[in-house]
Amino acid sequence: MQTQPHAEEVRVVSAAELSERPQGETGGELSDTELAEIYSFAIQLGRDAGAMLLNSLHRRRRDEAVGTGPEEETVLEEKLNAVDIVTETDREVEEFIHSAVATRYPSHAFIGEETYSSGSTKEYLVTDAPTWVIDPLDGTVNFTHSFVMFCVSIALVVRGKPVIGVIHAPLLNQLFSACKGKGAWLNETMRLPLLGKVGVGPIPRNAPSKCIFSCEWGKDRKDEPDGNLHRKVDSFVNMAAEVGARGGKGGMVHGVRSLGSATMDLAYTAMGAFDIWWEGGCWEWDVAAGTCLVQEAGGLLTTANPPEDSQTADIEDAKLGSRLYLAVRPACDNPGETAREGQERLVREVWRRVRHLDYSRPGVA
Amino acid sequence: MQTQPHAEEVRVVSAAELSERPQGETGGELSDTELAEIYSFAIQLGRDAGAMLLNSLHRRRRDEAVGTGPEEETVLEEKLNAVDIVTETDREVEEFIHSAVATRYPSHAFIGEETYSSGSTKEYLVTDAPTWVIDPLDGTVNFTHSFVMFCVSIALVVRGKPVIGVIHAPLLNQLFSACKGKGAWLNETMRLPLLGKVGVGPIPRNAPSKCIFSCEWGKDRKDEPDGNLHRKVDSFVNMAAEVGARGGKGGMVHGVRSLGSATMDLAYTAMGAFDIWWEGGCWEWDVAAGTCLVQEAGGLLTTANPPEDSQTADIEDAKLGSRLYLAVRPACDNPGETAREGQERLVREVWRRVRHLDYSRPGVA
Repeated sequence: MQTQPHAEEVRVVSAAELSERPQGETGGELSDTELAEIYSFAIQLGRDAGAMLLNSLHRRRRDEAVGTGPEEETVLEEKLNAVDIVTETDREVEEFIHSAVATRYPSHAFIGEETYSSGSTKEYLVTDAPTWVIDPLDGTVNFTHSFVMFCVSIALVVRGKPVIGVIHAPLLNQLFSACKGKGAWLNETMRLPLLGKVGVGPIPRNAPSKCIFSCEWGKDRKDEPDGNLHRKVDSFVNMAAEVGARGGKGGMVHGVRSLGSATMDLAYTAMGAFDIWWEGGCWEWDVAAGTCLVQEAGGLLTTANPPEDSQTADIEDAKLGSRLYLAVRPACDNPGETAREGQERLVREVWRRVRHLDYSRPGVA
Repeated sequence: MQTQPHAEEVRVVSAAELSERPQGETGGELSDTELAEIYSFAIQLGRDAGAMLLNSLHRRRRDEAVGTGPEEETVLEEKLNAVDIVTETDREVEEFIHSAVATRYPSHAFIGEETYSSGSTKEYLVTDAPTWVIDPLDGTVNFTHSFVMFCVSIALVVRGKPVIGVIHAPLLNQLFSACKGKGAWLNETMRLPLLGKVGVGPIPRNAPSKCIFSCEWGKDRKDEPDGNLHRKVDSFVNMAAEVGARGGKGGMVHGVRSLGSATMDLAYTAMGAFDIWWEGGCWEWDVAAGTCLVQEAGGLLTTANPPEDSQTADIEDAKLGSRLYLAVRPACDNPGETAREGQERLVREVWRRVRHLDYSRPGVA
């Protein structure tokens, strides 16, 4: 645990402010030594924040076991609608991370889910400056239910690219970490993908068949005939239905998984536990750390929305903040096909089966 | 680990054979002492079998890391279609459990997923006799992907009712166990539901809103307009859509989860981590242990298919082998409503939103 920093050092830096700063103060590339030092710091921060989540969970269990605590419904506060629960824990953990970062790296910018969501703008605020993008508790609903799939997510983003990512799921005892050029790791000892590129294999010839497809129902549940809920469900059914069904779109994936945590979905895609993750509507703090993990593990992250020429278009990296993501796991080469070619083939197979989602974002091209 | 038993003691006993046996040999109630002894045996069996799963996973990782093992695609064998993978591990673990049971309780019947599936009948074979109903590896696809949601499931069924249930998910370090009259437990020390009945709370007044809804896409992916896939998806969408949508059926559940393991879904419902589990198509070895867990924790397990008079019909316990299940978590009383009344209210709310699934079964009324 860090000692308490000076509170006045801790605040969200607006995009306008940052763009006015001289480059030397906030931008500029970090040296390898600086990056390595920040990586160690971020891992320790992830450990500490994860321990805070676990302590909070155990404290709640104890309180409720002896009947001194409030009932679950009263400790939760509703936000947006019944789906998005905010707990005190969210706020405490974000404050802890924010304070630690501000003490150690006072010149870095900071964007946290809780701080951001309580503000009035939905603009994309990440600039070229070194910026910490964190979610103190992803999978809040799971956390309030003692379901294992929750985590803290911590990323450092430089020039708009996540260069450090730490995801700690304390009840699973899984700490994922990655740093640009240093690979992606589980519990600091097992390199991702977990089975090695040979072990996770090439992208199957008949993919998305044989693939685990990970997706989320999200919070956007409006029952509009052509709304996001129905576009998502159409896409899920295309991926799931038997091969050849639905006008040739049936993908007969091996399995469909929904964990209730975009961050864990991405970590498991980096690991090779999931083959495909497709999602719209999530925010940069949900995916910043996971993006670094997927890319360092050798996976591919692009946009959820198929471009017009989806079978021939260049496959570009997803833009952080675009709210539209498609991730494909690391792979080894197939005979006659590189790993990247296999991944791109799978991206096009997914694009062929999914519909456009409507999640726009001010400030992202 | 048990020593190897005599192979000739180990075989599946047919329903016809059992019905011819004198009651004293196979039926009869077990005494409390006998039950307690069998419970200890079953927990140890669960531990050992879980350790075998974990060893197998680590061995595979090691083999593939050094490049001496076969590639993933060649160690897997297809059954039914691409979704249902059988690994050697399934067979080894079932053989281990079968042998241990036959040595210790030679008069007990035994039905295992692997042995059963390789037979020609799909009849329901559980009689009144003490019968072990086990799944050596539930969540096989997850296991082959190193995704944490896999487990061994071991149940003792007497007079058609599961009286002992053990579920061990070794990568999660979660061992769930229950015995008739002794409650349900996590890792033998934490009583289920995990937060206590007060902690999991009463069934929310506006349920299924605020509930985590757990469901699976399964393997039945035929694209028939009125087939099970579309009936399932219709039901999922009803549960998920905003309140009031879809002709009043919108349930706006808090979250939708799909883990790829019916057994884990049931364990998490017993724990209170999930509020609702609705599923058709699974088999008795998927649910026997989980049934005991849910019931001992104070949850409710009934049929997935709404009866004609779904808002007034008696709510009966699910029949083992019926392949149609709806589970509701343990709860405490609401002011003016008992826990059971709250659970029954939720069952009717789910029935109002889900469609009939078509999974018949020879041998089950």
